[in-house]
Amino acid sequence: MTQTLKLAVIRGDGIGPEVVDEALKVLHAVLPDDLVVEETPFSLGAARFIETGDILTEDDMSAIATHDAILLGAVGGDPRDPRLAGGIIERGLLLKLRFAFDHYVNLRPTRVYDAVGTPLAEPGDVDFVVVREGTEGPYVGNGGAIRTGTPQEIATEVSLNTAFGVERVVRYAFELANRRARKHLTLVHKSNVLVHAGALWQRTVAAVGQEFPDVTVDYQHVDAVTIHMVKEPARFDVIVTDNLFGDIITDLAGAISGGIGLAASGNINPDGTFPSMFEPVHGSAPDIAGQQKADPTAAILSVALLLDHIGRSDLATAVTRAVEQDLADRGTSQRRTAEIGDAIAAAATARTTTA
Amino acid sequence: MTQTLKLAVIRGDGIGPEVVDEALKVLHAVLPDDLVVEETPFSLGAARFIETGDILTEDDMSAIATHDAILLGAVGGDPRDPRLAGGIIERGLLLKLRFAFDHYVNLRPTRVYDAVGTPLAEPGDVDFVVVREGTEGPYVGNGGAIRTGTPQEIATEVSLNTAFGVERVVRYAFELANRRARKHLTLVHKSNVLVHAGALWQRTVAAVGQEFPDVTVDYQHVDAVTIHMVKEPARFDVIVTDNLFGDIITDLAGAISGGIGLAASGNINPDGTFPSMFEPVHGSAPDIAGQQKADPTAAILSVALLLDHIGRSDLATAVTRAVEQDLADRGTSQRRTAEIGDAIAAAATARTTTA
Ligand SMILES: CC(C)[C@H](C(=O)O)[C@@H](O)C(=O)O
Ligand SMILES: CC(C)[C@H](C(=O)O)[C@@H](O)C(=O)O
Repeated sequence: MTQTLKLAVIRGDGIGPEVVDEALKVLHAVLPDDLVVEETPFSLGAARFIETGDILTEDDMSAIATHDAILLGAVGGDPRDPRLAGGIIERGLLLKLRFAFDHYVNLRPTRVYDAVGTPLAEPGDVDFVVVREGTEGPYVGNGGAIRTGTPQEIATEVSLNTAFGVERVVRYAFELANRRARKHLTLVHKSNVLVHAGALWQRTVAAVGQEFPDVTVDYQHVDAVTIHMVKEPARFDVIVTDNLFGDIITDLAGAISGGIGLAASGNINPDGTFPSMFEPVHGSAPDIAGQQKADPTAAILSVALLLDHIGRSDLATAVTRAVEQDLADRGTSQRRTAEIGDAIAAAATARTTTA
Repeated sequence: MTQTLKLAVIRGDGIGPEVVDEALKVLHAVLPDDLVVEETPFSLGAARFIETGDILTEDDMSAIATHDAILLGAVGGDPRDPRLAGGIIERGLLLKLRFAFDHYVNLRPTRVYDAVGTPLAEPGDVDFVVVREGTEGPYVGNGGAIRTGTPQEIATEVSLNTAFGVERVVRYAFELANRRARKHLTLVHKSNVLVHAGALWQRTVAAVGQEFPDVTVDYQHVDAVTIHMVKEPARFDVIVTDNLFGDIITDLAGAISGGIGLAASGNINPDGTFPSMFEPVHGSAPDIAGQQKADPTAAILSVALLLDHIGRSDLATAVTRAVEQDLADRGTSQRRTAEIGDAIAAAATARTTTA
């Protein structure tokens, strides 16, 4: 039976288009006869906003919603452009998609590949996944200000946390940990200060943990976890945490594991009600855009997460192994974006045809 | 003229007493004839709470308030002890002192000492200071929950930010940057998501910056700053940030610079209305308490910050140089807490008597 994947493609701004081109190249390289991909391009991002004033219209949303998945490169223009101030693109596009499509699991795996340098002298055998909550916490946009611009200004930001929202992401994290070899889950929060949200997370982990007797659990404060991530990152298996803490520690995870150029992510709606979205963790890097200098590996690894998500872990593995091979083969010479994509696509093809 | 320093000493729990003993040893070693220290011990912490049910009484507060400064070791008992759940000691003691005594500047310097290993392969020449806001943000305790323990639970945490509070700490950071060689200030926030608080911080930095034309300024999101701290920590000079972000990035700063065993901090009330408080960033480490295994260096460097604060930068420098010498002389053999204190005290004495 042939499976058809309707893929919405948001190439976006800056280096987004370049890395998406390579990601699609690798996707097509591994496609077997029984999987057809139908791509629909959506031209969204800072450039479109500046041109038309639209970030994401109702029409865009309903059109994207008819797809099975989304592949996104990067969005965001020149950070100094006053027309883009206040994170208007990030919030109006990226966060709007995550919230509207109920991407309550933001999945961010971290591995240290043998062949890749890391800033750490002794990284050890690092292979962990951060399950970041994607629809609650301080990201809900529930803040405000009075007397703005005066010496009496007061600005607030409210973190919203619900039993419903915490429970479903914690359950996902336990299920993931239960499938992995080490079966270990670390909750990261700041329960000694953010006592109400922290207590909800801690109680939920304790309760859901009852259903997963094989999974061992520990807790770390978000400040302390940065120390462990630098000093002994190999200790982590699955980390579950809130939206903001997840944002911070996954950039750190990228840094200690050889760079944000390798960090892939999936914004997942596990219920399948809405399309899930796959994107490199890196931004649009407008300073190097269009120069074929960007590393497309994070976008390519995001395609592996996409393939895993649609139940084709065989193809996901082919992509991951091709990336590993490419990393091992990498010399010190600087390759163009398309050259990296070509090499990984070739390695992936070899793997799927010999398999 | 003889200066008298009335010092409230909170030795605290776990390794707190051991490291404070060494810190006081070094303080006494550098005291010149014109500076007298009068110490008052306050027995506070988890042990006292368990014994008496009191964490910090009104009487404790008024007694401490009559002092010029506070030296604190560490507070907190066994984290698994249910009587200490929910950060009751941290909030009732540490945060209560910071808020009641208006410690709006939480000063946390980071240096990579030549002689000390760091987990980073190439740290470079690292010497920066984090100025963490200490009395606002998500630390104000303005949260709550309804339907606790039910599937309908909702828990909130509110970050409170005022122009008054942001302006005074930003001004302090600019003044500090202006006195340093590189004169560079980095604002760290998450203004693309926490738009109201972020805008207040950004506007305030822009406005106060007008008064400091020699200080260059940049901005980094809190997620991105973790990358730079791992990949090129030498680029930072002064960082100013909110209470929670400061908590997270100063632990990371400790980790990349050779360990939390060296990280000192000052909780400062620059107006002098209340006593400032000096403490190592590390916790009470109950697992190694009483065994003379703790490194007292962070507590000793906190004494250097205290001396600086009371205007005795000559003595602060003597302590810092003695620590540097000790770090350079350190072999690989494990020394007892008191041996490290003895060595630093001896080096400091030599420096003050020959000066
Ligand atoms: C661009 C920004 C809104 C986003 C976030 O904070 O989630 C980014 O940092 C990320 O991690 O995907
Ligand atoms: C113990 C805790 C409340 C405290 C904080 O979060 O400020 C600690 O982590 C610190 O950095 O001093």
